Amino acid sequence: MDTRYQYKIELLVRDYECDLQGVVNNANYQHYLEHARHEFMYSAGIDFAKLHDEGTDLIVSRVELDYKFPLRSRDRFVVCINAHREGRLRFVLEQDIYLLPDEKLVLAGKVIAVALKNGRPVVVEEVVQALERHKSGVSQV
Amino acid sequence: MDTRYQYKIELLVRDYECDLQGVVNNANYQHYLEHARHEFMYSAGIDFAKLHDEGTDLIVSRVELDYKFPLRSRDRFVVCINAHREGRLRFVLEQDIYLLPDEKLVLAGKVIAVALKNGRPVVVEEVVQALERHKSGVSQV
Amino acid sequence: MDTRYQYKIELLVRDYECDLQGVVNNANYQHYLEHARHEFMYSAGIDFAKLHDEGTDLIVSRVELDYKFPLRSRDRFVVCINAHREGRLRFVLEQDIYLLPDEKLVLAGKVIAVALKNGRPVVVEEVVQALERHKSGVSQV
Amino acid sequence: MDTRYQYKIELLVRDYECDLQGVVNNANYQHYLEHARHEFMYSAGIDFAKLHDEGTDLIVSRVELDYKFPLRSRDRFVVCINAHREGRLRFVLEQDIYLLPDEKLVLAGKVIAVALKNGRPVVVEEVVQALERHKSGVSQV
Repeated sequence: MDTRYQYKIELLVRDYECDLQGVVNNANYQHYLEHARHEFMYSAGIDFAKLHDEGTDLIVSRVELDYKFPLRSRDRFVVCINAHREGRLRFVLEQDIYLLPDEKLVLAGKVIAVALKNGRPVVVEEVVQALERHKSGVSQV
Repeated sequence: MDTRYQYKIELLVRDYECDLQGVVNNANYQHYLEHARHEFMYSAGIDFAKLHDEGTDLIVSRVELDYKFPLRSRDRFVVCINAHREGRLRFVLEQDIYLLPDEKLVLAGKVIAVALKNGRPVVVEEVVQALERHKSGVSQV
Repeated sequence: MDTRYQYKIELLVRDYECDLQGVVNNANYQHYLEHARHEFMYSAGIDFAKLHDEGTDLIVSRVELDYKFPLRSRDRFVVCINAHREGRLRFVLEQDIYLLPDEKLVLAGKVIAVALKNGRPVVVEEVVQALERHKSGVSQV
Repeated sequence: MDTRYQYKIELLVRDYECDLQGVVNNANYQHYLEHARHEFMYSAGIDFAKLHDEGTDLIVSRVELDYKFPLRSRDRFVVCINAHREGRLRFVLEQDIYLLPDEKLVLAGKVIAVALKNGRPVVVEEVVQALERHKSGVSQV
C-alpha cells in the first residue's frame, strides 16, 4: 500500500462518528478525507491562511466516493493520498481509506479541487510547485 | 424545478454547519442529502426498522457530488430527489440542492444505493414497489 | 409550556444525529441549543455580523445540561428559551427541550453568555435593549 | 498537570471542527470529552457492548462545562480525566482540556454518569471495581 501513495495519516474511529446502524456515518468519511487533505497540504508547505489573505481559496468542486466496507467503533484506519494536476486548473486527489491492520479497502475516493480568486479558477504557482516538490520527495514513504 | 422531481424538502442552514471559510462544510451536504433521502423513503412507505429486523439494510455504495455554489449561514434551501432503478439491484437517486428563493443550483448529486442481506445485494420487492408507487403518485408535486 | 418561555422553535431529529445507542448523541443537543439561541437572537434584532465587525463577540462561557429523556430518530421536539441579565455582564439563557406532542421534558439547560471586546467582558447596550424589548413583546406567545 | 489526573489523551483540532468564528464549535468539546471518556473506560477494562447485551447502559445525566479559552485550527490539546463515585449510584468525571504545549486551561468539565437497567439507576460492581483498579494503578502516569 505505502509505495503507491504520497501521503498517509492514521486515525481511530470515535464512537460519536458512528450512527444508528452501528457504522461510521457516510458523511463522516468526508470529514476524514478533509482532515487528511489539509494535513497533506500543510505538510507540502501550502499555507491556506496566507493564500486566503491574498484572496485565493482552494475549494472542492467534485467528489466521487465508493463505499467498499464500513468502519466501526474504535477501528484503526489510514487515509492515503495521491495528488496530480489535471489540465491547467484542476487538482485531482485520489484519497483511499484502508482498515488496519489488514489493509482492507474501506473507501476509494476522488476529489477535484480548484483555486478560486474572485470567484474564478486560477493557477497558483505556489501550490503547483509545493505539490510537485512533495511528490518527488516522498518516494521513500 | 418542481415538476422535474419526485420529492423535495426545505431546510435552513444552521450556523454550526458552517466552517472556518464561512460556508457550509463539504461533508454537511451529505448530511442534508441523507436526511432528505430518509424522509423521502419514509414518505414512500419504506420501513427501515422492519427491513433491518428482517436482516436487510439499504446502504449507499457510491456518491458523486458536484459542488456548484456554497450555502451560507441561515440560507434557505431545498433538497430535491428523483429515484429510479438501474439494473436489477441498484437504485439511483438524483439529489440536487437549490438555494431559495431564486433556485440557484448549489449541489448536483448522484447517490447509488443497494439492499444488502447477509452482505450480498438482493432485490427487495417491497422497496421496488414503494418507489414505483411513489413515482406515479407525485406527478402533481 | 408556552406561557413560561419567550421563544421556541420546533425541530425534527435527523437520523445522522443519533449514535450507536440509538438515541441523539449528547453533543448534538448543544447543536440544537445553539441553533435555537441564534434564531432567538436574530428574532430579537441582534446582528452578530455587525457586532463582530465592530470587534464584539457574544460567546458562551458556561453550560449546565441535565439530560432527562433521550430523543430518538424522527422525534419532533421544541427548544424553548428564556433570557435574563445577571449582574452587569452576564446573560443567562434557560434553554429547555421538550418532546412533542406530549411535552415530556428532554433536557433542561442553562447557558451563560457574555459579550467580549478585545478579550474582555463588556456591556453592549444594543444587546441588552434587544433582549428587553423581546421580553416584553412576547407575553402573548 | 499529569499527576493530578488518572487518564489523559492527546488530540489535534481538525479544521471541520471549527465554526464561523474561527474556533472549535462549543458542541465539539463534548465530542472530545466523550471520546476521551470512552477510551478511558475501555482502558479500565469496562466493556460497553457486554454491559449493553446484559441490559445495562452507562449514560450521562448531567454536564457542567466552563469554557475558558478557545481552541483553533490544528491546535494540539490534551483531555484529562479523574473519576470518582458519588453516593451509591453516580459517577463523577472531572474532564479538563488543556492547550499544548503550554498547558493553558481550555475547558473545565464535570460529567455525571449513571448505569441504567430497565430505565432505573443500578450499581454495577464490575464498573465500580474497574474504576477503583484504574485509580490505584495510574499514580505513575
